[in-house]
Amino acid sequence: MKKTIVTISRQFGSGGRTVGHLVAQALDIPFYDKELVEQIALESGFAPKFVEEHGEHSPGKTLFSYAFAPQGVPGVMNGMSTADFLWHIQCGTILQLAEQGPCVIVGRNADYILKDREDVLHTYIHADLDFRADRIVRLYGESEKSPIARLQEKDKRRKVNYQHYTGRTWGDADNYDISLNTAVVGVEAAAKIIVDLVKNLE
Amino acid sequence: MKKTIVTISRQFGSGGRTVGHLVAQALDIPFYDKELVEQIALESGFAPKFVEEHGEHSPGKTLFSYAFAPQGVPGVMNGMSTADFLWHIQCGTILQLAEQGPCVIVGRNADYILKDREDVLHTYIHADLDFRADRIVRLYGESEKSPIARLQEKDKRRKVNYQHYTGRTWGDADNYDISLNTAVVGVEAAAKIIVDLVKNLE
Repeated sequence: MKKTIVTISRQFGSGGRTVGHLVAQALDIPFYDKELVEQIALESGFAPKFVEEHGEHSPGKTLFSYAFAPQGVPGVMNGMSTADFLWHIQCGTILQLAEQGPCVIVGRNADYILKDREDVLHTYIHADLDFRADRIVRLYGESEKSPIARLQEKDKRRKVNYQHYTGRTWGDADNYDISLNTAVVGVEAAAKIIVDLVKNLE
Repeated sequence: MKKTIVTISRQFGSGGRTVGHLVAQALDIPFYDKELVEQIALESGFAPKFVEEHGEHSPGKTLFSYAFAPQGVPGVMNGMSTADFLWHIQCGTILQLAEQGPCVIVGRNADYILKDREDVLHTYIHADLDFRADRIVRLYGESEKSPIARLQEKDKRRKVNYQHYTGRTWGDADNYDISLNTAVVGVEAAAKIIVDLVKNLE
């Protein structure tokens, strides 16, 4: 089946964001990374209202049902933590972005949020620890912590966040249509494989 | 780096064996599936001797050290269970097959056994449950159990076996260089992606 939307889940330092950018460029479609989705969600006047109106029809029904259950606390946050509130706004934003047409979305557990749409190709970009350690030092510079420690901390955070909001296991190949190790395949080649796949699927 | 050997780990019913066969054909290299590896291991006169001589130098050192520690039981099986003994013979067989040159090896945890060779591309073929259920009924016919129950039983066995002999998690994308969902990508297209990848890596 034809796939017009691409989600990119990625390990920190694997080059997943760059892969996403290259895919969006090659397919000439909008590119939304984690920060952009967050910004759109917070800037959009409709977002909290959208969340209130559409919460029950969104994925993760149990979580939503819990989040939107009356808890005696008035206001749009309705008793949710800031993190949960932001997550729910972002769910709405990602569902809306997907409604608008072809695009590439990096991060924000978009693979889970869009799991029920059949026009989405779900990808996972990962890489060996050494490759990622070398890459984050080149891109983001040294810090007090060793690059390996920084990677392990980020990996753990993403794992916990993903498990919390989706109930699934981060990095499980079954969650994705294609997973690529950029340390072996290369960042540009990974993007090319995904682009060709999108073009060839009917 | 150039990859001349391809391991294919696969979910039952995903078409992974067919993918492996197509890859071997396209690259014109030998194809070893699980049954063939088992047969070669058992038929080879050298196998038990090989296991005895090379056990300590094989991967999974802890397991091997345990398995080959004197346990007061004479004979080549040296106190191992038949399953463990076969596993160790097969480790030796797979290491030897890899030494002989380019090939495709399906199953038998070859991804783990050959993890220290840099000339190996590790792939994982999986698919949605419905796709696999439909496929096993077409290929192997109906049985008393429902196709879904058969798949879940096989999945569980492979998971437990893999965890037991490798200490790793079955289906974790990080174990592989590329993972493909044949329900989305297609069996032939998955083989083509792997073939192109092997050809393009330098």
